[in-house]
Amino acid sequence: MHSSDRNKLRQYVEKIENLEVEKTEIQEHISDVYKQAKSDGFDPKIMKRIIKIKKMKTEDRETEDMLLDTYMLALGLISSDEEPEQ
Amino acid sequence: MHSSDRNKLRQYVEKIENLEVEKTEIQEHISDVYKQAKSDGFDPKIMKRIIKIKKMKTEDRETEDMLLDTYMLALGLISSDEEPEQ
Repeated sequence: MHSSDRNKLRQYVEKIENLEVEKTEIQEHISDVYKQAKSDGFDPKIMKRIIKIKKMKTEDRETEDMLLDTYMLALGLISSDEEPEQ
Repeated sequence: MHSSDRNKLRQYVEKIENLEVEKTEIQEHISDVYKQAKSDGFDPKIMKRIIKIKKMKTEDRETEDMLLDTYMLALGLISSDEEPEQ
């Protein structure tokens, strides 16, 4: 490989590695916030679900909830009187 | 939930959401660098492998390479004269 290409490649790889480091730092920061919240009595698992739900469009969420109920009913995990009104 | 707890929870969730946005931005930046490298003639898949290899300890990498050769030999994907000298 030509030396100018070698340099380019080296620069690209370095750039990506630096960005990966930044990404890891942010991920660690996120973990710290969850830990802090946990020590304050909040359940990190439920918080993660909330954050996921907040990201979804209302319509998508409603469709998913409806399907979830349908499957749970079909599998006997809930009874039909627990079924939400349509 | 008490209003002070509600506020705390809201703050934790907001903090995490902001960090997630930052993380996504960095990920997009990484993707851009790979795209740029590709348009410069470098193979992103090989670059990803290089970055992964660089992260591994030399010892771990050698152990993995040796195991890979052993398995490839066992499965007839290479012949024994291709086997590296021990």
